[in-house]
Amino acid sequence: MLSNAMFDVINSDLSRLEDTLLEAVTAPDELVTEVGTHLVTSGGKRLRPALCLLSAHGGPAFDLEHTLPLATALELIHTASLVHDDVIDKADTRRGAPTANAKWDNKIAILAGDFIFARAFHLVTAGGYGDHVSGRLAWLVGNLSVGEIIQDKEMYRASRDEADYYNRIQKKTADFLEICCELGALVGGMKKEETDALAQYGHDIGMAFQITDDLLDVSQTSEQIGKPVGNDIRQGIITLPVLRALHESDDRDELLTIVTNPQMTNDDVNRALEIVKTTDGMEFAKGKADEYLAHAKAILPANLPADIRDAYEQVADFIGDRDF
Amino acid sequence: MLSNAMFDVINSDLSRLEDTLLEAVTAPDELVTEVGTHLVTSGGKRLRPALCLLSAHGGPAFDLEHTLPLATALELIHTASLVHDDVIDKADTRRGAPTANAKWDNKIAILAGDFIFARAFHLVTAGGYGDHVSGRLAWLVGNLSVGEIIQDKEMYRASRDEADYYNRIQKKTADFLEICCELGALVGGMKKEETDALAQYGHDIGMAFQITDDLLDVSQTSEQIGKPVGNDIRQGIITLPVLRALHESDDRDELLTIVTNPQMTNDDVNRALEIVKTTDGMEFAKGKADEYLAHAKAILPANLPADIRDAYEQVADFIGDRDF
Repeated sequence: MLSNAMFDVINSDLSRLEDTLLEAVTAPDELVTEVGTHLVTSGGKRLRPALCLLSAHGGPAFDLEHTLPLATALELIHTASLVHDDVIDKADTRRGAPTANAKWDNKIAILAGDFIFARAFHLVTAGGYGDHVSGRLAWLVGNLSVGEIIQDKEMYRASRDEADYYNRIQKKTADFLEICCELGALVGGMKKEETDALAQYGHDIGMAFQITDDLLDVSQTSEQIGKPVGNDIRQGIITLPVLRALHESDDRDELLTIVTNPQMTNDDVNRALEIVKTTDGMEFAKGKADEYLAHAKAILPANLPADIRDAYEQVADFIGDRDF
Repeated sequence: MLSNAMFDVINSDLSRLEDTLLEAVTAPDELVTEVGTHLVTSGGKRLRPALCLLSAHGGPAFDLEHTLPLATALELIHTASLVHDDVIDKADTRRGAPTANAKWDNKIAILAGDFIFARAFHLVTAGGYGDHVSGRLAWLVGNLSVGEIIQDKEMYRASRDEADYYNRIQKKTADFLEICCELGALVGGMKKEETDALAQYGHDIGMAFQITDDLLDVSQTSEQIGKPVGNDIRQGIITLPVLRALHESDDRDELLTIVTNPQMTNDDVNRALEIVKTTDGMEFAKGKADEYLAHAKAILPANLPADIRDAYEQVADFIGDRDF
């Protein structure tokens, strides 16, 4: 979970959320319940439901019981999407816990992912938010899948178009955080103008979140991030610091040769990281992330309750400073 | 598609459906559209949307434009579920066409399945049927996943409890056909009593459909069904004729030893089929299917338009006689 102090205003809501998540994955079959429970208790940060709850709190019609099914559904969609990602990536662990495909098998993991997606939609329909809210979530799930298919196609291609990069991370992360803020504001009864502003806030911190994630892949040690450094490069994914280096470095041809080679060795990855670090790639990416975060804070509606505004600002600061 | 004569009353609706299916899988990305198009044009029988359209036609408020998104969503859910099944089963072909995992890879197939599920939910929310209809579909998808996980757990276990068998095929097939009839009737404006009767009809023909499917696995040649005979036995799935033989055959111990052995050989499978054929297992299963079909026809609401009633009866007869 995210740092408690940041979310004083929704701390008790977030502990209720742990219960509603467990309820949501309880099935008539023991094994299904066991898989679902493992997945929702394996250390998520709960950023998406937290954003939804914060936005709902900021509205004049906030009602926790009315908001919880939506917040729960958002975390379930995130969970289901990670479960399928782990099958695709043949990942053994996530956040230090075994993945569903490792602990059980691909069959169970694929079906458990489908089950969790389905439970998310069941929750929002039972929440009675109407077709618009369910439709936005359906759009989101489709968009996440399309985003991953596009990312897959672009692997080892090293498009040097910055717009492609921003389009990809929007689909991968920013659209999701945008919808969390937008739908939270909607069910909290905010006016359209405020809802739109919070949606923009969600988009902005989502872009910053993904850029920061990409940065950590270059800047951290493998102990710090719990996975090999340069993992994105190894997987053929071009991140912003690398993109910058492909434009700016004197060794750009060497870098391009490495990052477009699916058979790159560990030495190649280390050399690529070295080249990136001799450029301003990391500062450039950090600067972009900071721009998004400054814009996110600036666009917060003026009439938000002070404690909610504080929390939003702390989330933005946290994303800029995070080192995990 | 199903035989044309059977569906005279909805033939033009079904050709519209082909268009709405293609529209539904059209994405901003070419590859996604290509995969989706391949999947929805690879020879489905369209039984689910046909049942939905028939039920809607039977109602006083039938409106084709209002019904099509629902009918399309039902076929999409079926398609997405088959796409994930094919990944799980490592299947190369389905209905004579290459599967998505064979033509592309597991990653594309898993993500395309998620995308198609999402599009189905997006269509129903855009159709404006309200939370109840979307909720029923979400329940259905969850139920299908749980059913498959249960089937997986029971593999090679050879439970001799007939109730387990019926419970499994209900989750696998009957609940789906039930929901097609039920929701079609709902959006066609039928009264509760008629809607319930058509839901029961859907359940009954669904049970008969799956029993007949199971029968074909025992009775047909591999040329007729386009897959190896005894495939269910090979996969550790106990079907009704086998279940009957496990109770009635003098060789039941030998049969049990074979069907609970995950390493069974082709000779073992052939011997198991031989044992089943010396019992009344096939007649017993055929009898059960016929009972369900008779009940399905008997429960049709008395006040259905004659052409709709005819079509329902023909669907039931078709399921009893089908040889594919």
